[in-house]
Amino acid sequence: MVRAAATEFDRDGYDGTSLAKISKSAGISMGALTFHFSSKNELAETVQNEGRALTRAALERVTAQPAPALQAAVNITLELTRLVEEEAIVRSAVRLVRERPDSDLWSDLWVPAVRRLLDHAYAQGQLRGDAEPADVAVLAEHLTAGAEAYLRTRLGTGAEFESATAQLERVWRLALAGISSPGRGQRTPPEDASGSTG
Amino acid sequence: MVRAAATEFDRDGYDGTSLAKISKSAGISMGALTFHFSSKNELAETVQNEGRALTRAALERVTAQPAPALQAAVNITLELTRLVEEEAIVRSAVRLVRERPDSDLWSDLWVPAVRRLLDHAYAQGQLRGDAEPADVAVLAEHLTAGAEAYLRTRLGTGAEFESATAQLERVWRLALAGISSPGRGQRTPPEDASGSTG
Repeated sequence: MVRAAATEFDRDGYDGTSLAKISKSAGISMGALTFHFSSKNELAETVQNEGRALTRAALERVTAQPAPALQAAVNITLELTRLVEEEAIVRSAVRLVRERPDSDLWSDLWVPAVRRLLDHAYAQGQLRGDAEPADVAVLAEHLTAGAEAYLRTRLGTGAEFESATAQLERVWRLALAGISSPGRGQRTPPEDASGSTG
Repeated sequence: MVRAAATEFDRDGYDGTSLAKISKSAGISMGALTFHFSSKNELAETVQNEGRALTRAALERVTAQPAPALQAAVNITLELTRLVEEEAIVRSAVRLVRERPDSDLWSDLWVPAVRRLLDHAYAQGQLRGDAEPADVAVLAEHLTAGAEAYLRTRLGTGAEFESATAQLERVWRLALAGISSPGRGQRTPPEDASGSTG
């Protein structure tokens, strides 16, 4: 039932979803549905709670793995993107947060953890001296929101598209190393034409 | 009328908006409103068309200015973010694209121009050799979507928040230069290694 509700909310939004549609897509009677959930509001709350729980579990999974702080921060955004990509409950919860003004922001669940890791990374010299942890946290939030937006515009269109997680990995590689060619305002020697790829 | 409709669509989405609400917020009678727009659908189309026109005009404004290709690509994302931040019609159009499945993607209006500029930038050596224009274009799209998501979760909450455009400028500075400290996987000489013993 919750999964069916999540799928409907994810596709059609809160306003576009009704208990009748959910009961139909779950293949159960309205009576059985409303026995468990008296209102659309209650179902949305349940989806949001489960989405939050899955998000927290993902966060714990990533932070339990040994990794340098900067990589751990990046890994959080990748794991959450994978979750948004694969798990309709989370994707739906993220959408519902936006559509139901009283909800806590989804990013409030994980950006603080990313920020703490970035503070550590900075203290340990993993970040450039001019890369403020607060700004890097905004970068992480923007990239994750960008990956979600990418998914949302492509899911359900029937068209093939690249995995948002694989794409985000490549984008992070760029952001970690910088995209400007050395010599354009960077404090690096002008050139290094090694073609070594990994 | 179009502005009032945009404000409603932007705040409450397509499903959450009615002609009655629009006529009320525009301060005109339903008769006057429906004289011009026979349906909510027609009003949404008009808002989306105006949003597209404003987007194209912004694109032309930016590309008319002389700037290195990489900077011009960045400037497009900044100008569009400023537009989304300040112009309810554009913000509303971007939201409506997501909620009305038959609409063309907003990003299709501007990502191709960004991509062309990045191809030039690459050819001119403004990008690092390993920064593929296609990936940098994804970075640009993610950052712009991230800035929009940032705005959308904060607008209308009544809380003070930093300009999305100013924030995006800082994030771009990071992405251009890279956030990892030299020596961590980058092909740059170790800057004075300040005693980091494991």
